Amino acid sequence: MIIAKERGKRPYDFVIEQDKTKGGYCPLCPGHEQNTPPEILAYGRSSDMPNTPGWKLRVVPNKYPALVIEGELDKRGEGIYDKMNGIGAHEVIVETPDHYETLPTMEYEQMGLIFRAYRDRMVDLARDSRFKFVMIFKNYGRSAGASLEHSHSQLIALPVVPHRIQEEINGCLRYFDYKDRCVFCDIIRQERSQNMRIVCENSEFITICPFAPRAPFEMWVLPKRHQSQFVSMDERQFEMLTYLFSETMRRLNNALPFVSYNYMLHTAPLHSSSLEHFHWHIEIMPKLTMIAGFEWGTGFYINPTPPEEAARFLREIELDEY
Amino acid sequence: MIIAKERGKRPYDFVIEQDKTKGGYCPLCPGHEQNTPPEILAYGRSSDMPNTPGWKLRVVPNKYPALVIEGELDKRGEGIYDKMNGIGAHEVIVETPDHYETLPTMEYEQMGLIFRAYRDRMVDLARDSRFKFVMIFKNYGRSAGASLEHSHSQLIALPVVPHRIQEEINGCLRYFDYKDRCVFCDIIRQERSQNMRIVCENSEFITICPFAPRAPFEMWVLPKRHQSQFVSMDERQFEMLTYLFSETMRRLNNALPFVSYNYMLHTAPLHSSSLEHFHWHIEIMPKLTMIAGFEWGTGFYINPTPPEEAARFLREIELDEY
Repeated sequence: MIIAKERGKRPYDFVIEQDKTKGGYCPLCPGHEQNTPPEILAYGRSSDMPNTPGWKLRVVPNKYPALVIEGELDKRGEGIYDKMNGIGAHEVIVETPDHYETLPTMEYEQMGLIFRAYRDRMVDLARDSRFKFVMIFKNYGRSAGASLEHSHSQLIALPVVPHRIQEEINGCLRYFDYKDRCVFCDIIRQERSQNMRIVCENSEFITICPFAPRAPFEMWVLPKRHQSQFVSMDERQFEMLTYLFSETMRRLNNALPFVSYNYMLHTAPLHSSSLEHFHWHIEIMPKLTMIAGFEWGTGFYINPTPPEEAARFLREIELDEY
Repeated sequence: MIIAKERGKRPYDFVIEQDKTKGGYCPLCPGHEQNTPPEILAYGRSSDMPNTPGWKLRVVPNKYPALVIEGELDKRGEGIYDKMNGIGAHEVIVETPDHYETLPTMEYEQMGLIFRAYRDRMVDLARDSRFKFVMIFKNYGRSAGASLEHSHSQLIALPVVPHRIQEEINGCLRYFDYKDRCVFCDIIRQERSQNMRIVCENSEFITICPFAPRAPFEMWVLPKRHQSQFVSMDERQFEMLTYLFSETMRRLNNALPFVSYNYMLHTAPLHSSSLEHFHWHIEIMPKLTMIAGFEWGTGFYINPTPPEEAARFLREIELDEY
């Protein structure tokens, strides 16, 4: 990652495509349950009638899935190339019944349901031995790839561990082999002692701007206790994650109002034991710069905002009492 | 890469942000030579006065460089992190004096100058031993990251070989070690025998839609003769590349009028001998889909257009005689 200070940018230097919700017909709103594929999970509905209103959170299959759940993997060659069927699950987590609610405006209780739904779906999908990895992610705002404005995240279960995830895990393993410590635990230790890139923290979680951010205002949310699997969180961690994630999203929204962003949950592959060398975390990438030829070609990112400046700006925001 | 046929898209299914040139003040136009940093190279000017009109192609330093040419690399640690100075060169290749000209409308002679400028700049930069790699790329259209509309490409010389390039070269080396053949030579052989993903070809070059495209209508332009370095091309290859690249860009523009795109020149690192296992090529990525959470997280790309369909569409376009 290249920090281009000549291009140094503070939040108000960016032209932000503001993605305020506009309303209109929405297939994810209560009352339109029949317009999604049949629900997989719902919280908060007092009746036992699936696909009816009254829910607080709902998980449905993606109507236009990138992968399909039926069939066999069927790995095969075509000359020098390799092919396999696109087996997988692609689900939509409808985070709230309120079309106008966003993560920074959401109450703690509601946000807590989102993380519980992530956990429950991962535990359920792990039962299908064809799946090796679950990627949970959120695209917020049109310029971050969201096609629906109703607050939602997505889940894709894959029959392989993606190369980029495996690379990350392998890198952590090499560090562990050499130092006998988890690299993310070391990052947390160094960030807490340097205190230059911390955005916020509580007893269980910490949000930092990473030392080598690919995007301006990139943030990572990490559990302070070593833990390789998101699904291993205990009740207190769920609560504390909710508090810190809510604060993180409110700081982001205050710094860069209605900015588009992606976040990705990095957790250990399914069926893996608890790993000493890997540490689950959430990576938040605000969408302020473009992926262009240089980034495509090299995998390097040109970032006009040093992480120390981004973190200071986010940290110094005064939030209303919540 | 995931081909999502359920989302199958032909060219007219995409909403294309058309990036027609709009004109207005342009720092790259003739007469404004004093508004760029002093030129590094110019072709076609009959006078000996640098930074004056009369040129056919001009190379200037980027006014807002991502990297700066002065100084030492100065690798150092900061706790567990590594740092180095942002040493490098960042140049702009102004491809034509005509503000309204684009690659698909450009005459062969003019396009030929572009490839010659790439070569001349790479040869010159190779003399600076601090540089290990030169990435040449073009961003066309706002949604592909272009901030100026006057036709131009860019060059960044780097003090390291980028990880993604090294990975590509290592992958090619593993294939070579196993098969004793260049993987790109094998790809060309298979594509010519299958004849399903070829867009166009001539005696020296071939344009294909790659088997695993990250983007709809992604194309690769490859020399048919094995060659690891772009700068090793002979005169006839320069001519034949110009013809085929022009045809490729006209086919793209005909299929997806004024679509934004990036292209990247993949060539062997500076100072490397001629490599049996690596084969230079140009990757063209039309900007039709978004990099969102799933792609960030996994490095996988969801592509709604199978390469066979993209290639057939591009191939069957009837071009005017040129």
